[in-house]
Amino acid sequence: MLRLTQYTLCPHSRSVRLALAELRLDFELNYEEPWAWRQSFLSLNPSGALPVLEIDEVLVLCGTYAISEYLSECYPEHPDDGGPVPLFPGDPEQRAEIRRLVDWFHLKFDREITRELLIEKHYRRTVGEKGRPPDSQILRAVGKNLRYHMDYICFQVDRNNWLAGEQLSFADLAAAAHISVLDYLGEIPWDDYPSAMEWYVRLKSRPSFQPVLEDYMSIQPPTSHYANLDF
Amino acid sequence: MLRLTQYTLCPHSRSVRLALAELRLDFELNYEEPWAWRQSFLSLNPSGALPVLEIDEVLVLCGTYAISEYLSECYPEHPDDGGPVPLFPGDPEQRAEIRRLVDWFHLKFDREITRELLIEKHYRRTVGEKGRPPDSQILRAVGKNLRYHMDYICFQVDRNNWLAGEQLSFADLAAAAHISVLDYLGEIPWDDYPSAMEWYVRLKSRPSFQPVLEDYMSIQPPTSHYANLDF
Repeated sequence: MLRLTQYTLCPHSRSVRLALAELRLDFELNYEEPWAWRQSFLSLNPSGALPVLEIDEVLVLCGTYAISEYLSECYPEHPDDGGPVPLFPGDPEQRAEIRRLVDWFHLKFDREITRELLIEKHYRRTVGEKGRPPDSQILRAVGKNLRYHMDYICFQVDRNNWLAGEQLSFADLAAAAHISVLDYLGEIPWDDYPSAMEWYVRLKSRPSFQPVLEDYMSIQPPTSHYANLDF
Repeated sequence: MLRLTQYTLCPHSRSVRLALAELRLDFELNYEEPWAWRQSFLSLNPSGALPVLEIDEVLVLCGTYAISEYLSECYPEHPDDGGPVPLFPGDPEQRAEIRRLVDWFHLKFDREITRELLIEKHYRRTVGEKGRPPDSQILRAVGKNLRYHMDYICFQVDRNNWLAGEQLSFADLAAAAHISVLDYLGEIPWDDYPSAMEWYVRLKSRPSFQPVLEDYMSIQPPTSHYANLDF
């Protein structure tokens, strides 16, 4: 039995949800608010970071890095039979490229865009700072960063079939996790980035993505096109 | 031929220097100032992150995550012969614990302590803001965070021989990289943390650590006890 402790708009949680679904594993979701720092959650993961994956109520895996590598080591893949695809396909050099891009999105994109946008446009209204408007200086910086990163996604998928090469990998899932959070909030200027849009539509169309597209937070519903496969 | 592009007081660079030395690989150091964003460096790693490892002038590995996992996959370990120890020893569960702790130091400890201290106490004087004193509010918060993290190191090494278990692993190297940067700056209140001190002395005594203990930046020399093996 797999139990993933996660938050709906946490990009790290989303990347692991996508990975578990790509590996065709059954799992239940356990909702946790990352700002709450509840004692029962901290006893599960003292770092306070999401997501956490519990396996058979015995093994506790903390954080995207430990979880994604563990899944890659322990769960079988059968891409030739039309079965689950590997999270880190290829030789060590190709895996290094996948891991470089996982860092790109889970560290750099997160720091320069997702974390700031979530604070300004989501957490504040959720934790009760509704009266305080978003910081326009931060939003301008984030918007500029986003254009750079969207160009980078286009650059990568124009060279390859997927972000890190010819095969889908965890790099695509990490990137799509961040993009899907921004798209939920209506922040992606899709018309300017057709290559990134085509890549994201391919991901959105995968069965692994459907539960993510069904996410709905009543305090902040998704933008109207969020779940459309053809925008 | 291995060439590591790094900065002397970058904790991520230091963890990879230690890993390369533990694997008994010969490598040359290429100095790069992380705030300079030089075009020639960005053409090596567009994310601008250190360290970068070049192998035989052909393969370019970017970032601690990609480098450490690549080294683990590609370079032989022979701990039974007294040879190099594995960076991620044990079964998948033990490796997940190592990776949890690598994240703990390279993400959490870095965000809550090292990055802030380097900005306040090193980068400012280095990039020419000598007149501006450190922000005392930030230093107080960092000091409080450091006591929590030192307690956590003691907690872990009191339970185990090394941070993640009975064997030395990349978790120890990542943690020691951060501790060594803070120790260079004279920021560790060693007397209050004898278990952490005993663990750090064990690491300092390893051959892999000697080049790190010889680091000397003329703009900011190390604290007097930095290179002493017995404090």
